[in-house]
Amino acid sequence: MAQSWENPRIEEKAGADSYAQAGVNVAAGNETVTRYRELLGEWRHPDQLGAIGGFAGLFRLPGDPKRALVASADGVGTKVVIAAELQRYDRVGADLVNHCVNDILVSNAAPLFFLDYLAVGRLKPDVAAAIVRGCAEACRRHDCALLGGETAEMPGIYRPAHFDLAGTIVGIVAIDKLPKVESVAAGDAIVGLPAVGLHTNGYSLARSLIPREEWSAPFGDATYADALLEEHPSYYEAVRAIQAVADVKAMAHITGGGLLENVARSLPDNVKAVFEQQRWSVPSILQELVRRGNLGAERYRIFNMGVGYTLVVPLTDAGPATEAVPGAKVVGWIENRANDEPRVIVHPAREG
Amino acid sequence: MAQSWENPRIEEKAGADSYAQAGVNVAAGNETVTRYRELLGEWRHPDQLGAIGGFAGLFRLPGDPKRALVASADGVGTKVVIAAELQRYDRVGADLVNHCVNDILVSNAAPLFFLDYLAVGRLKPDVAAAIVRGCAEACRRHDCALLGGETAEMPGIYRPAHFDLAGTIVGIVAIDKLPKVESVAAGDAIVGLPAVGLHTNGYSLARSLIPREEWSAPFGDATYADALLEEHPSYYEAVRAIQAVADVKAMAHITGGGLLENVARSLPDNVKAVFEQQRWSVPSILQELVRRGNLGAERYRIFNMGVGYTLVVPLTDAGPATEAVPGAKVVGWIENRANDEPRVIVHPAREG
Repeated sequence: MAQSWENPRIEEKAGADSYAQAGVNVAAGNETVTRYRELLGEWRHPDQLGAIGGFAGLFRLPGDPKRALVASADGVGTKVVIAAELQRYDRVGADLVNHCVNDILVSNAAPLFFLDYLAVGRLKPDVAAAIVRGCAEACRRHDCALLGGETAEMPGIYRPAHFDLAGTIVGIVAIDKLPKVESVAAGDAIVGLPAVGLHTNGYSLARSLIPREEWSAPFGDATYADALLEEHPSYYEAVRAIQAVADVKAMAHITGGGLLENVARSLPDNVKAVFEQQRWSVPSILQELVRRGNLGAERYRIFNMGVGYTLVVPLTDAGPATEAVPGAKVVGWIENRANDEPRVIVHPAREG
Repeated sequence: MAQSWENPRIEEKAGADSYAQAGVNVAAGNETVTRYRELLGEWRHPDQLGAIGGFAGLFRLPGDPKRALVASADGVGTKVVIAAELQRYDRVGADLVNHCVNDILVSNAAPLFFLDYLAVGRLKPDVAAAIVRGCAEACRRHDCALLGGETAEMPGIYRPAHFDLAGTIVGIVAIDKLPKVESVAAGDAIVGLPAVGLHTNGYSLARSLIPREEWSAPFGDATYADALLEEHPSYYEAVRAIQAVADVKAMAHITGGGLLENVARSLPDNVKAVFEQQRWSVPSILQELVRRGNLGAERYRIFNMGVGYTLVVPLTDAGPATEAVPGAKVVGWIENRANDEPRVIVHPAREG
């Protein structure tokens, strides 16, 4: 998940001992966010606008007070390690672009252009071209210009066969089309769009629970690698289809931090989101990771657990919304919240 | 150097055997550029505009046909290795922002906003905050919003104490203020702005020529580390000062590829740039690297060799231009070019 400086966040932080054992440090993440907030407080550009939940940053469109540019930076996380070691480069570009598209979609923005950053230990033209082709094709699917990028060969930072991939997207939104988050009220329904796997989050833990030696082993109808590399979907068309038939008040892209953190920061203080996990199915790779890691409630903070994107709609719009998109389901609802209550509650499915 | 997709380039490529020995592969870089060009040829967004020399990408400003957004992505290169190993984090943020500012300045753009990407092996809040503070302060100096960013903890990709830093800048330019590159003509002067060291290019070679053990050793009035970590300057104010007194026809930011490549791609086909190196002084750290590496003409492709930014002006404007900025000098001139001639010639200074 990209941070905006409105609400900075740290990727891969997730409140679990199991995660710390995988090398990801939650306390350090929270402390870093605090430090970034201090930095933010020192100066703010006058054309910067308030963002929604920290999924993207907003900047007044020059010359047009009614519109804003919406920008977000992101990476693919350590999913790139699996892609590199298995030499499967064709999807990480789409993982990244789709992730970025979803982040600005939370502000209802349409993509304008994207720039990539590809850093490699040793430059191999076929590999670089395959990765960037994935970005280019995903951009084209969103009518988004691939406006530029940087490809850096950096021996000494990356192992020869390893790489990192990050990118920045810039989109546009009419300010009166920004989601009216303050209108979210008790009784609203939460519509969830299905996740296909980990998307781009939780890979440090996943790699510790499913070691390299097993990646090519059978899992379901394919292999662990297939399940782990399943492409981060774009929810752009699905969201537009729902908006055509429903009043969408608030949205969240479920990335690092899971339902617990991402939905929490997309809602006003006076409400809470209550999810019932039995209402949706959890991808088998996530079930496997939960089983192997013996994960408790932290599963909802580390992984998306099957819900990739949420939309809050009036209860009366829930039917049309879920009918508009295959797989869309009512996954929870909005309730009033007292000050000492959590912002998000997930009722797990009954076991067995 | 960021590539735009108008003219994609690869960082750290530089035509020298010595560079290949340092782990940077020129042939692979050129081949990758070819592959990217093929990708670019497949589809192009209608609002994408022709860029100048590949320093940045241009996109029509929504709702305003007279202006364009100008965007560039970049990294700091393996300068980050030196910063990480010596735990000197305070300047890499400014290195990055200034580099990006200069890249869009070639299109005469003023910065609007910036987003960073910081990836670490192990997240330490003090380190992350110091690095991002450098970005924030450099942004503020350019009245540029730090609109967002991504901080990713990625064990398995980066060594615990290592990090990578990249970023994307978005600026704006009036289309009639884009440099009139086609107006460059024989007899024009080339004004150079002084470099203070390597800036953000050539560090893989530099690290192979000056090994880790020597970084803290004395060099000149300070240490090798001080010279190697000298901050990549922003040329924004200097360029604006020169534009106030001179007709600036073309500009180039001298990054990876040196004078030879960066100036070449900023000029029309019918002219060449001729530099006389005796007209300017070369920072002592670059002299040292040339001596250690026994570098010949490739020095002008690997390093900036003391010229950080070039501006082509009519000969009659050369006096006012150089008087407007301390350290600015006439470093060469424009001559007519036949089809088989190189685009850039550098006459080295006489030795001794």
